[in-house]
Amino acid sequence: MFGNPRYPTYQVFLAAAIAALITMVLMPLFIKLLRHEGVGQQIRADGPQQHLVKQGTPTMGGVVMLVSIVLTCMIQAKWTTDLKLAMAATLATGSLGLLDDIESVAHKRSLGLTPVQKMVGLAAISIGFCLCAVNMCGISPAIRFPGGFFIDLGVLTTSLTIGGASVVVPWLYVLFVFLLMAGLSNAVNLTDGLDGLAGGCSFGVMMAMSMVAFRYDAINLSIFAAAIAGACVGFLWFNGHPATIFMGDTGSLSLGAAFAALAVLTKTEVTALVMGGLFIIEALSVIIQVVFFKLTHKRVFLMAPIHHHFEKLGWDENKVVLRFWIIAAAFAVLGFALYFKLG
Amino acid sequence: MFGNPRYPTYQVFLAAAIAALITMVLMPLFIKLLRHEGVGQQIRADGPQQHLVKQGTPTMGGVVMLVSIVLTCMIQAKWTTDLKLAMAATLATGSLGLLDDIESVAHKRSLGLTPVQKMVGLAAISIGFCLCAVNMCGISPAIRFPGGFFIDLGVLTTSLTIGGASVVVPWLYVLFVFLLMAGLSNAVNLTDGLDGLAGGCSFGVMMAMSMVAFRYDAINLSIFAAAIAGACVGFLWFNGHPATIFMGDTGSLSLGAAFAALAVLTKTEVTALVMGGLFIIEALSVIIQVVFFKLTHKRVFLMAPIHHHFEKLGWDENKVVLRFWIIAAAFAVLGFALYFKLG
Repeated sequence: MFGNPRYPTYQVFLAAAIAALITMVLMPLFIKLLRHEGVGQQIRADGPQQHLVKQGTPTMGGVVMLVSIVLTCMIQAKWTTDLKLAMAATLATGSLGLLDDIESVAHKRSLGLTPVQKMVGLAAISIGFCLCAVNMCGISPAIRFPGGFFIDLGVLTTSLTIGGASVVVPWLYVLFVFLLMAGLSNAVNLTDGLDGLAGGCSFGVMMAMSMVAFRYDAINLSIFAAAIAGACVGFLWFNGHPATIFMGDTGSLSLGAAFAALAVLTKTEVTALVMGGLFIIEALSVIIQVVFFKLTHKRVFLMAPIHHHFEKLGWDENKVVLRFWIIAAAFAVLGFALYFKLG
Repeated sequence: MFGNPRYPTYQVFLAAAIAALITMVLMPLFIKLLRHEGVGQQIRADGPQQHLVKQGTPTMGGVVMLVSIVLTCMIQAKWTTDLKLAMAATLATGSLGLLDDIESVAHKRSLGLTPVQKMVGLAAISIGFCLCAVNMCGISPAIRFPGGFFIDLGVLTTSLTIGGASVVVPWLYVLFVFLLMAGLSNAVNLTDGLDGLAGGCSFGVMMAMSMVAFRYDAINLSIFAAAIAGACVGFLWFNGHPATIFMGDTGSLSLGAAFAALAVLTKTEVTALVMGGLFIIEALSVIIQVVFFKLTHKRVFLMAPIHHHFEKLGWDENKVVLRFWIIAAAFAVLGFALYFKLG
């Protein structure tokens, strides 16, 4: 471990720096490998015209980010139960994303797994995560609001015997955690449509999440979040426009899952939704677009997700990305301020 | 003042948010005004070819940033002597830059004031600032290194009577502060050559400076630095590539001066040089290029300042900017870590 344990802030800062460095060292090798194998991103045919030049750019950069996050935690953190859990959820979702990316690359389609396959995978991961969080980390089955009041979701709790052990199953909370994790994973996934967008937005959110975990006295989760933020910076070095690699579903799904896991393990389920406000807006824009179109056959946005709407309005891709970063950071700061002030 | 004084971190955070908002509200009006008057930036004829499209883009965005910084401090800060001094140095240098911008725009040349005129202006401002800092704020005439050892520059001190008052003049320290302020002003000015570059780098540095001032218990300077960081964010909303406005010398010179003033008033003269590492590298690249060319008639860089070197190497403008932001932030964090650890 680097950094004197007497100064835990140092360990957290260093985790971000180490993760960024590892990502920056490994990413060029990974890009070279993918180029050599001729593996590239399939761009959605119905997206903005100017994005078609991105066809063939290497993807699955999330793999390197995940490697860097694991290595950084091995160097800087202690493998407490909460960290193990958060990491397991992240890696499992990353593997699901990787499967999706590989399917997509292998069959040269822009969509890999079917939506149902993805949802089943996310359900399995989030149910497993939630049961472990409740039974192994003593996480209370309740949604916590800033200020410290709760909506109890423990009313429909039963006890199952799994492999000889008695497992408490708070059904409503399990459902909530599934919605949170699947929702955030898909929201980050939808946000990942412009060079640097998902990486930059995740950086701000993860920095704020790291501070939240620090204040919650979960130092290892704080290191974990800082490592993710650092990996995002290292990734952005290569993903800035014009991108030389994309994170793929490997990256975006696992970033969302990590975010949800941190929210559950630090009991900031609602605060996290404020912090991730930009991701929520991106997801809502798609839902609104689809629902309105089904109802009225009219479009609310020129194109969904909403970042494409602004591109269609004539904003340069970079300008959309930079402005969305600023908005994402503002939400992250707002969420952190809520937590800091109200607890 | 917004934010409970019991939570000074809040006042600082809010200062950044308020400054960003004011800048974002006023900047479009300013851009409209400049466009209406047909006032635009003259692009250096010997710069990279692809920058010639920037000819005519409105400039002097620094004016709005300065207005926003002053308003934010009026709302959030107390006008203690140190804040007054830092603000005076910033506004005076901003006025010098404005003179330069106006000269440049009026005569449709890419250079306004002559280098000698600029230097005389910077000398007058820095001497005035240094004498006030020493005589009114009790700043010791010594360069402070991280860890708390000093190089005493008080050896050549005399006492003058100016307007009936006795003024201590530590000549060597006055010279040092001039070099620091003129150096940093020109360094930020040189950095200001790509869309978003100077603004983004200054954001990171000013956030770190705000934390340093906070730790130095200079809450009003901390608010001042946070306001500058916020103004940079608001500016970046419009200055991101393709920029709709530039900060001009009004912005870049005053940002450098504010940085130097903060370094002097928080006794972090050396730490600040680490924090502003990217600015230093930009300035050094020009010095190295010029000196080597005079000596050997060969160029070290394809073009100076160094950001143009990477453009000539084929990096996209955005990519240079994003990577320089990351480097600038790394220096800012390193400098802050030094200060935090060693004092």
